[in-house]
Amino acid sequence: MVQFADRMKDMKGSDIRDILRFAAVPGMYYFAGGMPAPELFPVQEMKACADLVMDEMGASAMQYSSTEGYPRLREQIAQRLAEKNNIHADKDQILITSGSQQGLDYAGRVFLNEGDVVVMESPSYLGAINAFKTCQPRFVTVPTDEDGMIMEALDQVLATTPNVKMIYVIPDFQNPTGRTWPLERRKQFMEIVNRYEIPVVEDNPYGELRFDGAPLPALKSLDTKELIIYLGTFSKILAPGYRLAWVCAGAEILKKFNIMQQAASLQASTVSQMETAKYLDTYSVDAHIAAIRETYARRCRLMVDTMAATFPEAVRFTRPKGGLFTWAELPAQIDTRVMAKQALEKMVAYVPGAGFFPNGGNNHCLRLNYSNMPDERIVDGITILAEVIKENLAR
Amino acid sequence: MVQFADRMKDMKGSDIRDILRFAAVPGMYYFAGGMPAPELFPVQEMKACADLVMDEMGASAMQYSSTEGYPRLREQIAQRLAEKNNIHADKDQILITSGSQQGLDYAGRVFLNEGDVVVMESPSYLGAINAFKTCQPRFVTVPTDEDGMIMEALDQVLATTPNVKMIYVIPDFQNPTGRTWPLERRKQFMEIVNRYEIPVVEDNPYGELRFDGAPLPALKSLDTKELIIYLGTFSKILAPGYRLAWVCAGAEILKKFNIMQQAASLQASTVSQMETAKYLDTYSVDAHIAAIRETYARRCRLMVDTMAATFPEAVRFTRPKGGLFTWAELPAQIDTRVMAKQALEKMVAYVPGAGFFPNGGNNHCLRLNYSNMPDERIVDGITILAEVIKENLAR
Repeated sequence: MVQFADRMKDMKGSDIRDILRFAAVPGMYYFAGGMPAPELFPVQEMKACADLVMDEMGASAMQYSSTEGYPRLREQIAQRLAEKNNIHADKDQILITSGSQQGLDYAGRVFLNEGDVVVMESPSYLGAINAFKTCQPRFVTVPTDEDGMIMEALDQVLATTPNVKMIYVIPDFQNPTGRTWPLERRKQFMEIVNRYEIPVVEDNPYGELRFDGAPLPALKSLDTKELIIYLGTFSKILAPGYRLAWVCAGAEILKKFNIMQQAASLQASTVSQMETAKYLDTYSVDAHIAAIRETYARRCRLMVDTMAATFPEAVRFTRPKGGLFTWAELPAQIDTRVMAKQALEKMVAYVPGAGFFPNGGNNHCLRLNYSNMPDERIVDGITILAEVIKENLAR
Repeated sequence: MVQFADRMKDMKGSDIRDILRFAAVPGMYYFAGGMPAPELFPVQEMKACADLVMDEMGASAMQYSSTEGYPRLREQIAQRLAEKNNIHADKDQILITSGSQQGLDYAGRVFLNEGDVVVMESPSYLGAINAFKTCQPRFVTVPTDEDGMIMEALDQVLATTPNVKMIYVIPDFQNPTGRTWPLERRKQFMEIVNRYEIPVVEDNPYGELRFDGAPLPALKSLDTKELIIYLGTFSKILAPGYRLAWVCAGAEILKKFNIMQQAASLQASTVSQMETAKYLDTYSVDAHIAAIRETYARRCRLMVDTMAATFPEAVRFTRPKGGLFTWAELPAQIDTRVMAKQALEKMVAYVPGAGFFPNGGNNHCLRLNYSNMPDERIVDGITILAEVIKENLAR
């Protein structure tokens, strides 16, 4: 009889991936995924890059290539990390992966035995929770407020919890809450982790998508002990369909990620890496990011303004300064998984909040994405969602 | 202090991936990887497909897409499986992965707890061994002869070994030996696994690369109990640089693979899937495979004829009827890992055999690839390798 491994018992489909099929339904107000605005993708530019790569690189673009990734692309990433994040890394401290989800998967497998503790913000990215679950760890969460993780609570957790092997955080425009840690919290965090010397996965897919206020230093830029494993991605600043991301870490840790990549998938796509490198050498990704920021700023404002105007007063939500998401906490009597079905009937898709809490509870929250829908559909869709919420409160 | 998970202790770099860097050394006789002949890659055709995809699909080629994969590509794969392998599967029984290595990784994680037994041929593909090692299983090997796995030995193993959770086999042009199971062995195998009801990973990257004799049915085509998980790939029939492969399995098992993919990498590249589907709809992949077969047949013959003419008589080796590899067993006094360094000094690269035995030993074997080098370099390189072997025997 076919038996599955124990790790499969606790694993289920991701709420985000399950709901993805509704993205293609005509007329859907799709606020569920973290999908970039497709009309901003540089389609003609990437077409030109595909041609250039085939003309210049020919067969080598279609062949196997190194586990760590295309050297030119790693150089470009290192240069951007220095310019944008004050992270000074050599290209040899960078491993290209097939999307940041793969970096999360490797992180769990490199650090976590069954029963080990991974510490994360509450709530946190459900894709990270699902990735780590394959290692059957224990999740210990740290409470958050409007400024992200509460550092006194983190210190308390680390002081009292045995077997903490990894900390996972998203300091910039967090998924799902949209919140950002101020500088003081970042310094406190580094002081604490330097004391306990626990490896930290800093997931930063949205850092460059800031449309309000000044950039804040990445944890990795404050790292003096090679404790920070930094995950960056092209999914939100260029396009997710190519599945390209990177891990930046110290030599000892990165070697383990490299060995895991050899076992798990060999390498990222040669041709996609060359096309992306060609894009970065030929066009201004900064100009492209500026256009994204402007659009997302407008859509974010439209969404939160519409929420303010139409949602019942008891609903609390984030006003993000960047990234892709806002987060709403509804009155406790509402189960957002049940309500999601009613909303889908009215053509509105969101992600219920419960999946972002690894230890359950919090059925009254939901995540909304503002990057993917055109402006007028944001207003209409949120107005419909407000009606659904009001109907639920009236019951 | 940073601590790594226990699973990392036993994991090390792959001999194949470590040696890959020598592929780019000018003048190297590179017989190490399983790299296709680059001059046969359909570069212009894939360039045209990249253009067509961007023109026709536009932004949707750059966006997230479903976990299971691009519907048109899954249809095409299902159709090819029916035509070429007599496997009758719906597209919904197919999951697209980022290379077959990822399918191997998922298989281990879906079926194997720490200490569970995975049964495989001795020797077997070292990349599969490395993938499964992340689950810390126990490897039990079944002896092979010129016709592949010895079925009486398999029956014996399954009758006497508790906790066998998965069987991994490569019946066609096996990696590393180049051997193929005859029909009778395939029937015996199915009779045995039907009796024990243990899931089987049938890895078939080379089945279409037959240049001698008639095709034999895939195990999956003989499967009446949904025990076979079939892995196919575009790496050897089109190009490995796109990282596209597939898993074909029954609904219950494939659902677990899908959940694992959600956790491990979300999905394969949208744009690569669309480009490959476009290639299959626009050009004849069968004509392309026919050209590959002809070249590999010639190179295989050149290699084994040169081996016969130049290697010491005590060396035994395979005369494959397809695939990419031949396998040589040298006199026991030769350690092929030590000899590999001497060969590299003379610009000849091969993969030492020991890594293909999960429980160690067999230091006197080596794997040679004949697909990647032009004809004349095969003759020259093998002649040099013969000298290296003779020098070692004379010591």
